[in-house]
Amino acid sequence: MAKFLTNKDENYAQWYNDLVIKADLAENSAVRGCMVIKPYGYAIWEKIQAELDRLFKATGHVNAYFPLFIPKSFFSKEAAHVKGFAKECAVVTHYRLKLDESGGIVVDETAKLDEELIIRPTSETIIWHSYKNWIQSYRDLPILINQWANVVRWEMRTRLFLRTAEFLWQEGHTAHATREEAVEETDKIINLYAGFAENSMAIPVIKGYKSENERFAGALDTYAIEAIMQDGKALQAGTSHFLGQNFAKAFDVQFTDKNGKLDYVWATSWGVSTRLMGALIMAHADNHGLVIPPKLAPLQVVIIPIYKGDGQLEGLTVVAEKIKAGLEAKGITVKYDNRDTHKPGFKFAEYELKGIPVRIAIGPRDLENKTAEVARRDTLTKETIPVDSVTEYIQRLLIDIQDNILKKAIIFKEENTFYIDSWDEFIKTLDDKGGFILAHWDGTAETEMKIKEETKATIRCIPFDSPEEEGKCIYSGKPSKKRVLFARSY
Amino acid sequence: MAKFLTNKDENYAQWYNDLVIKADLAENSAVRGCMVIKPYGYAIWEKIQAELDRLFKATGHVNAYFPLFIPKSFFSKEAAHVKGFAKECAVVTHYRLKLDESGGIVVDETAKLDEELIIRPTSETIIWHSYKNWIQSYRDLPILINQWANVVRWEMRTRLFLRTAEFLWQEGHTAHATREEAVEETDKIINLYAGFAENSMAIPVIKGYKSENERFAGALDTYAIEAIMQDGKALQAGTSHFLGQNFAKAFDVQFTDKNGKLDYVWATSWGVSTRLMGALIMAHADNHGLVIPPKLAPLQVVIIPIYKGDGQLEGLTVVAEKIKAGLEAKGITVKYDNRDTHKPGFKFAEYELKGIPVRIAIGPRDLENKTAEVARRDTLTKETIPVDSVTEYIQRLLIDIQDNILKKAIIFKEENTFYIDSWDEFIKTLDDKGGFILAHWDGTAETEMKIKEETKATIRCIPFDSPEEEGKCIYSGKPSKKRVLFARSY
Repeated sequence: MAKFLTNKDENYAQWYNDLVIKADLAENSAVRGCMVIKPYGYAIWEKIQAELDRLFKATGHVNAYFPLFIPKSFFSKEAAHVKGFAKECAVVTHYRLKLDESGGIVVDETAKLDEELIIRPTSETIIWHSYKNWIQSYRDLPILINQWANVVRWEMRTRLFLRTAEFLWQEGHTAHATREEAVEETDKIINLYAGFAENSMAIPVIKGYKSENERFAGALDTYAIEAIMQDGKALQAGTSHFLGQNFAKAFDVQFTDKNGKLDYVWATSWGVSTRLMGALIMAHADNHGLVIPPKLAPLQVVIIPIYKGDGQLEGLTVVAEKIKAGLEAKGITVKYDNRDTHKPGFKFAEYELKGIPVRIAIGPRDLENKTAEVARRDTLTKETIPVDSVTEYIQRLLIDIQDNILKKAIIFKEENTFYIDSWDEFIKTLDDKGGFILAHWDGTAETEMKIKEETKATIRCIPFDSPEEEGKCIYSGKPSKKRVLFARSY
Repeated sequence: MAKFLTNKDENYAQWYNDLVIKADLAENSAVRGCMVIKPYGYAIWEKIQAELDRLFKATGHVNAYFPLFIPKSFFSKEAAHVKGFAKECAVVTHYRLKLDESGGIVVDETAKLDEELIIRPTSETIIWHSYKNWIQSYRDLPILINQWANVVRWEMRTRLFLRTAEFLWQEGHTAHATREEAVEETDKIINLYAGFAENSMAIPVIKGYKSENERFAGALDTYAIEAIMQDGKALQAGTSHFLGQNFAKAFDVQFTDKNGKLDYVWATSWGVSTRLMGALIMAHADNHGLVIPPKLAPLQVVIIPIYKGDGQLEGLTVVAEKIKAGLEAKGITVKYDNRDTHKPGFKFAEYELKGIPVRIAIGPRDLENKTAEVARRDTLTKETIPVDSVTEYIQRLLIDIQDNILKKAIIFKEENTFYIDSWDEFIKTLDDKGGFILAHWDGTAETEMKIKEETKATIRCIPFDSPEEEGKCIYSGKPSKKRVLFARSY
């Protein structure tokens, strides 16, 4: 166990914070609730961005950029939307500072905006205001736009990556001629997110509908992917919203269909954020530090020489550089760490902390035997491999590590998913184990709220694949036809 | 000439605005001074970003992300800095909205911030506040960080891409142990920018020092690259600042050097922005529309079938798809536009407007002769090429177009650079031709200001390669040892 980390099993929350800081991912800034994403954290985010961007473009989406500011009046136009976001909006009221008599800097009261501007908490309103001018006819549809941007939601209690006042995200905003097409898009994206979570992040997720309570403010339907963290809590990792014609009506966006009939445009919106960084950490990391799946690791392999004098280092460097070149030729990212300021043990711990998937160590005996010691971060096991076959071995190993991290996460999810049929058992499971609970619910908002109040567990989603079955609500005992997913969550 | 564009030679400003709108690059938003960057404009920006990001990383820089907000008090810490930016700062004063009695939405006065937050106009202050905690020893240096971000400067007169209240940019912020290293970094980056401008944007630039008047607020030295637009005006395309120890002193960032001595850290900062989009347009576009250099063109080749009936289209499609596949295999981006809703002439004009470097047209006669008509956007000339050699031909052609656009821009710059030695000639040249004027200046801020007041021309830079020579200031007649670059500018 890394000595500077809190033990994960003793204080999970503190372990998480320690890890984010010690692994140099992010830190709190001077601005309340806003984080600094440090280079290593940002490099992982760039890998996440690149793959998502590729997936969006492969499904016909294009990127664009809309203003940071939203006129206050735009918010009032969609009633549910403003209700959902009004309480956490940062508001710009002035556009100039000046020096006061004492040489201090103050807001220039003469430079007050006629209408306050809101820092976007999400961009539906400013975007649909633009779409009004872009859409006249069915020929202008669909519009499949994504934007990578920063947004601000003034959260009172913040945690690095998981809940910050400013965060980075992508937000897709699409416009369609028919309800069916918009629903199809909503569905396509939640599947894209789920595929990304499993294939790249090695995190299995449950896809489903949000209950009305948990829906996006302004949506007719919200689909979500829910992941389970190692403390048994759920984390919502991405959402895709079917917005119906709500925003088109609020911003009067009508189009002429093929038959010459005027109708309002159908909409979706969807997003994932730097919150995914929190999921990545909490799904895989251990008491030694991060465990980054190879597909998202900015650095996949580190080579460390083990030597006593400079004479030894030279020979090791020749081999190390050869191994490095061989791996890089296969598109693998490699660093040869021959710093003489730190001992191998320090370096081992450092790269374990940072979750580098593969570590190669070579010492004088390896030189003699033409071997290298290859250690994998996920299992912390190592093997001695002939240098000649190390490239091929590591190519396979990286795939194997990616698969193994996912497999482990799938097993964890399965072992921590419980089918519960009584209220006592429900409470006991939540308190003893946490985890995903599949249980019957009577479908009412009242019951949902009461369960939340009494247990802090919420309906994470109504899984798409939940089979029809006769059952009784664990809380009210009323009839239910489907199990829903309950959990305490981030 | 594209009929919906204003003639470039009649009204250059209107031509520019028409072009940005008609070519679907950007538009004004509902928020004063803020633009919407539309998908086609953003796709070009993504190409610019990708190449710059590659160059930054190749020179050892890493990306990170710092908060959008800067506490007001941070600004006061560097005196010149606050003076430079105070007049254009958007200020956040509240963090909540609420519904008033009439159901309208108002700012919640109970949610007033203790200290106002400024939307970053640039991030030196928030970043150096962070660096204080990151730097203790020379071992922590250098820090070579870049950030891709949005910034806000409340400009009163705005123009799409050239001057907007919010814009996108990258800002590098580096920290060094010695003055020499920081100066070297400042220099390295201005050369990187100049290389990018020439190699990717096909825009030749003049590199030089800014006069004290034109320096970045808080810098000891500002290096700039200056480009010439087709109307003879200069455009500052990028700046690299040597900040000395100003920000380290303002934020008390000291380090222990190799000898155990405490010293303040040396700094640089540097940036280019979406303003480059304006430069790209104004350097190359013509009365038919944009001319995008192949290296930055999101779409490099378009194929248009010319046919009368569906029977003809089928055969053309087979050939078009074959050409497309051949080009794509070489990494060239291609679109086959077989829309039957628009005539070829319309499509030709559309792709000319959008500046697609190469257009291939194939008709029934081409099918017979196994040829294709290849037109290049830069010269508007065309040739008939055997289909079998079209891939190779276009590979070479794209390189040739890139070279030719640069060559044309270099010639334009040379033809519009004037060595002027008298005041009358100076004024006459500015009024008749505009352009870059190399003239002697006595080195005083007073003269610089008077020249600006009387002619609207400013010192764009003191070129690095300006030779030492004896001369007299064109305005004051006082002795001068070097010509400086004057121009009216964007």
